[in-house]
Amino acid sequence: MVFTEKYEEYLNYFNEKLETYCNKLDCQPKILNDSIKYSLTLGGKRIRPVLTFAVGDLLGVPKEKLVNFALAIELIHTYSLIHDDLPEMDDADFRRGKPSNHKVFGTGNAVLAGDALLNTAYSILFSECFNGNEYISASKFICDAAGIYGMIGGQSADLLHESDNTVDEDVLYFIYSNKTAKLIIAPIIVPSILNGGKNYSKLKFFGEKLGLLFQFTDDVLDVEGKFEELGKTTGKDENKYTGVKLYGLEGCKVKSELLCDECLKILESIEGDTQFLTEFVNFIVKRTN
Amino acid sequence: MVFTEKYEEYLNYFNEKLETYCNKLDCQPKILNDSIKYSLTLGGKRIRPVLTFAVGDLLGVPKEKLVNFALAIELIHTYSLIHDDLPEMDDADFRRGKPSNHKVFGTGNAVLAGDALLNTAYSILFSECFNGNEYISASKFICDAAGIYGMIGGQSADLLHESDNTVDEDVLYFIYSNKTAKLIIAPIIVPSILNGGKNYSKLKFFGEKLGLLFQFTDDVLDVEGKFEELGKTTGKDENKYTGVKLYGLEGCKVKSELLCDECLKILESIEGDTQFLTEFVNFIVKRTN
Repeated sequence: MVFTEKYEEYLNYFNEKLETYCNKLDCQPKILNDSIKYSLTLGGKRIRPVLTFAVGDLLGVPKEKLVNFALAIELIHTYSLIHDDLPEMDDADFRRGKPSNHKVFGTGNAVLAGDALLNTAYSILFSECFNGNEYISASKFICDAAGIYGMIGGQSADLLHESDNTVDEDVLYFIYSNKTAKLIIAPIIVPSILNGGKNYSKLKFFGEKLGLLFQFTDDVLDVEGKFEELGKTTGKDENKYTGVKLYGLEGCKVKSELLCDECLKILESIEGDTQFLTEFVNFIVKRTN
Repeated sequence: MVFTEKYEEYLNYFNEKLETYCNKLDCQPKILNDSIKYSLTLGGKRIRPVLTFAVGDLLGVPKEKLVNFALAIELIHTYSLIHDDLPEMDDADFRRGKPSNHKVFGTGNAVLAGDALLNTAYSILFSECFNGNEYISASKFICDAAGIYGMIGGQSADLLHESDNTVDEDVLYFIYSNKTAKLIIAPIIVPSILNGGKNYSKLKFFGEKLGLLFQFTDDVLDVEGKFEELGKTTGKDENKYTGVKLYGLEGCKVKSELLCDECLKILESIEGDTQFLTEFVNFIVKRTN
């Protein structure tokens, strides 16, 4: 099956489950329910669920065992975007081509929508924990990846340094590794944890490199991308703490190429059919949104 | 042992564990670590941990088995205060006599400090899940109490109705039951879940009534309390959706008395030594902060 068809298959499977999940949401008041659903159904590439299913196929872990983990990670990702877009954070008016959550529902409700998504992700994962210790380990891995030694630490450092005049390479890598890569590693590592830790170290290393690659291509897209394709305002990072500020635009492209090569080399060292993941890496490099 | 001594014993045990926990926190950047610790160590009555230990003593569940649950609940409570105090929510400048988190660290960092505390609470609970199914059940109970069908739902309704001219009794009870009572029920019910569900229904009912009692005495304190004792600005709820607006000040005092009686009656129906919990109810009624 060609890459795009397989991607579509993973995506459709996930989106159907997400839609079912959203239809069952029935919390009060209505504005809370609406604001959660709004951000969850804005679309997007769903790269994290796709990665989970693809690694699942590589390791022989069926989608049915993985889907609630994929769902929880996507909820956590969505919460982080809502809080990140807030006026006192990135102050972003658009997300996936639509007004960001606080533009539609107000800042107070957007804070609560983010809190709600984070909390709901863990409610889903606590239910999974009854299935056995490997399910608890996978849940805790996701939680820690999203936490103070992971994504939240990266976001905090990003906020702290946003007005710095110069970019320190170590700090930039701290931010990119934590803010972006940790929540790319998590969906890749979950199938391994559920399968007794198969290829754990290699997949973790792959996730780290893929996360950095994703962030450097993001930097390039912020300069070269179009609003119509990206769905968010470009050029917003001009004065921010980015790879472009440190390496320049061409330097970021070189970094991306190197990271792409590293990702592909790690995949080559993993036994089994890694074709989809190989094409996934190229898809990340060539993406326009 | 008299009530105040026992309270002190529970409080000291918890505060020591909290201090140890805070000393081990070592996340980057420093401002994230500092902002988390700032709000966690502002003091307070710690009524939730005290309730957990007291019900633990009633049911024969030792403090050592309960302390991480108490810690997680206190982290969740602290996150909710930080987000609730934000300018776009309650816009409160003081908390426990000190500047609120966003006044010290800025709004963006306060959002992240809240996110960090919520996430860290669940990291603690996922570790507890390895101890067995009753630990998973207790963790999930806490998570759901804090979530969209619990505290977050209540906060959302509170925000939605804050400028309403009239107060609807059903809506007021929805807000108070969810925003306040759910996270009072949780610390009371955890020892029961760990002990095979002993007195589950009675304790849940007790927690509901105690939570409402706490909120109605809070309404009275907002009118009659002093800043020096409360540690937060009084009179702030004047135009808000409160019991005082619906029942008047004297009406709220009558409500409190009725709820106090209900709490005591439920305790009388529970076998074992409920003296501390009985005095706890009276302590909530007579508190000045």
